[in-house]
Amino acid sequence: MLTPFVAVDVTVLDANLRAMAEHAAAAGLALRPHAKTHKSPEIARRQLAYGAAGLTVATVSEAEVFQDAGDLFIAYPVWPSPERAARLRALKERVRLRVGVDSAESAEALGRAVPGLEVLVEVDSGHHRSGVAPEVAGDVAVAADKAGLTVRGVFTFPGHGYGPARQQRAAEDESAALATAAAAVSGHGLDASVRSGGSTPTAAHTGSRVLTEMRPGVYVFGDAQQLEMGTCDGDQVALTVTATVVSRSGRRFILDAGSKVLGADQQVWATGAGRLLDFPDARIVALSEHHATVESDDVPALGETVRVVPNHVCATVNLADELIVVDGGTVVDRWPVSARGANT
Amino acid sequence: MLTPFVAVDVTVLDANLRAMAEHAAAAGLALRPHAKTHKSPEIARRQLAYGAAGLTVATVSEAEVFQDAGDLFIAYPVWPSPERAARLRALKERVRLRVGVDSAESAEALGRAVPGLEVLVEVDSGHHRSGVAPEVAGDVAVAADKAGLTVRGVFTFPGHGYGPARQQRAAEDESAALATAAAAVSGHGLDASVRSGGSTPTAAHTGSRVLTEMRPGVYVFGDAQQLEMGTCDGDQVALTVTATVVSRSGRRFILDAGSKVLGADQQVWATGAGRLLDFPDARIVALSEHHATVESDDVPALGETVRVVPNHVCATVNLADELIVVDGGTVVDRWPVSARGANT
Repeated sequence: MLTPFVAVDVTVLDANLRAMAEHAAAAGLALRPHAKTHKSPEIARRQLAYGAAGLTVATVSEAEVFQDAGDLFIAYPVWPSPERAARLRALKERVRLRVGVDSAESAEALGRAVPGLEVLVEVDSGHHRSGVAPEVAGDVAVAADKAGLTVRGVFTFPGHGYGPARQQRAAEDESAALATAAAAVSGHGLDASVRSGGSTPTAAHTGSRVLTEMRPGVYVFGDAQQLEMGTCDGDQVALTVTATVVSRSGRRFILDAGSKVLGADQQVWATGAGRLLDFPDARIVALSEHHATVESDDVPALGETVRVVPNHVCATVNLADELIVVDGGTVVDRWPVSARGANT
Repeated sequence: MLTPFVAVDVTVLDANLRAMAEHAAAAGLALRPHAKTHKSPEIARRQLAYGAAGLTVATVSEAEVFQDAGDLFIAYPVWPSPERAARLRALKERVRLRVGVDSAESAEALGRAVPGLEVLVEVDSGHHRSGVAPEVAGDVAVAADKAGLTVRGVFTFPGHGYGPARQQRAAEDESAALATAAAAVSGHGLDASVRSGGSTPTAAHTGSRVLTEMRPGVYVFGDAQQLEMGTCDGDQVALTVTATVVSRSGRRFILDAGSKVLGADQQVWATGAGRLLDFPDARIVALSEHHATVESDDVPALGETVRVVPNHVCATVNLADELIVVDGGTVVDRWPVSARGANT
């Protein structure tokens, strides 16, 4: 097979799916995995078979791809432009649908466009992206209720847990923010029965004292960010990019996997632009569109293939048309990345 | 139309194509634009109509998409695995084909796999990626010749010209490296008549004293990197991502264009994760998969659309299935990104 290609080890994948399902069950939490990571109906089917309560998605077009799941949460402050509103109304007839809302103004627009839609109020627990301060979640809920939406609770994404040794604190922030927000919503006599949070890095620290639901995404595959945060091990990495050594000189070599297959994500604390699964001491010191420049004491031969662990697997999957499914080193299937590019 | 989407202003595009063609002609250089930027047969057709001598591509699969151009250079140290070699042999029958080579070992493999293939020796002019030191280009050329390849000259990519105020120096390095390498090849009695270099940032400094050919890519669209290097102006930006304001708070607002449509490229000297064409003082201070967090004194309304200039346009195009072609603000066409994902 021509390199580079994106390979998924189905045995490791299934072990990851099972482990998170067991963790959520043991913690007393509903598991609603984020499908943005895999964008694959086959993996969604397996997640549901392992007991997921439904799926999380990021966009209306992702929701359309995953509507067979029957129960979807668009964890995003959806703006109901006329065309998007029409698609939301159609989706709402076909699945149990919830969306995020983070202001009175967008609640009013959403209520006019999609009457009766179920919403969760988005809360900022420390990541400082979208979402309101927990204390004002009640005001947004009241506006949503007045606008004819059906409030079901609150949600947050503890994205500030991405970084070495930040997971415990981010999980505590998440829990505190959701508790405050839920109390604010309940204080207005509205439903706060869904308190949804979670991410792969914080999953081990997430409990059911406040939360009712968790939404991890990356856990299905793992990636170099998770490896470097210590939130997965090498034997939990289910997705790699197979690449060929095309040039070498001294301790450096060049792979034919660049940013157009791996993605260019690189957090400030990352040790490089990805890792090599079978060369743990190697570092990707530079990344172009079709070149990964690797430094390593152990240099493979020209023409040899190696397995690259991308920094951020969600980006990698979104660049691929299909996942090459392997089991024990043998190709056993190909799964289409059906929601690739589903950004709207 | 649902946001985010990738829009190309055809008037600006045509002006960019014409300007670079005129620059190359005035400098006495063949123009062989890099199709990796646009991945679009329609734009390739226009480049050839403006006088391009042929196209540059990065991969065999890109070459297959652009074979109608008739004259292709794969500017990459192609490793001839059996399947790739078969495709190279087929391509060689259909187009005038040249590929890069940067070691005796890969020359021998390539010569065995694709006898008679035309090659250019890749030289490192300061970017320190693939390519040999200029002084040893002759040795690689001799090995290629012995292996049954047809040596046509030398090439380099002055990628170290990406950065503020680095263009002049990188163009000088490029010229010096190609002169040394060409002399080394000629010194062995081999053909060094092609001396190919060039990139969009260095294009203004590239002349024909040494070079015979230039291979800029990004100039067709421009991007935020070029804006911030001063190598294009806002009125030369032909490609933007239209995005909707979905959340706002104080001086911050969130757009629905994230790394899954813009790409995550961000050089250390970049002021952010992209720019807003109509808000020159705004900065994208954070980028998630579906959120761009913008700081600006001037904050648009919720639901308003804005035009985002991505940092690195090659990454943006490679995430899109089609380019929405606009003229004077009206959609006039849609061009497929036929070589999207053509990484092999």
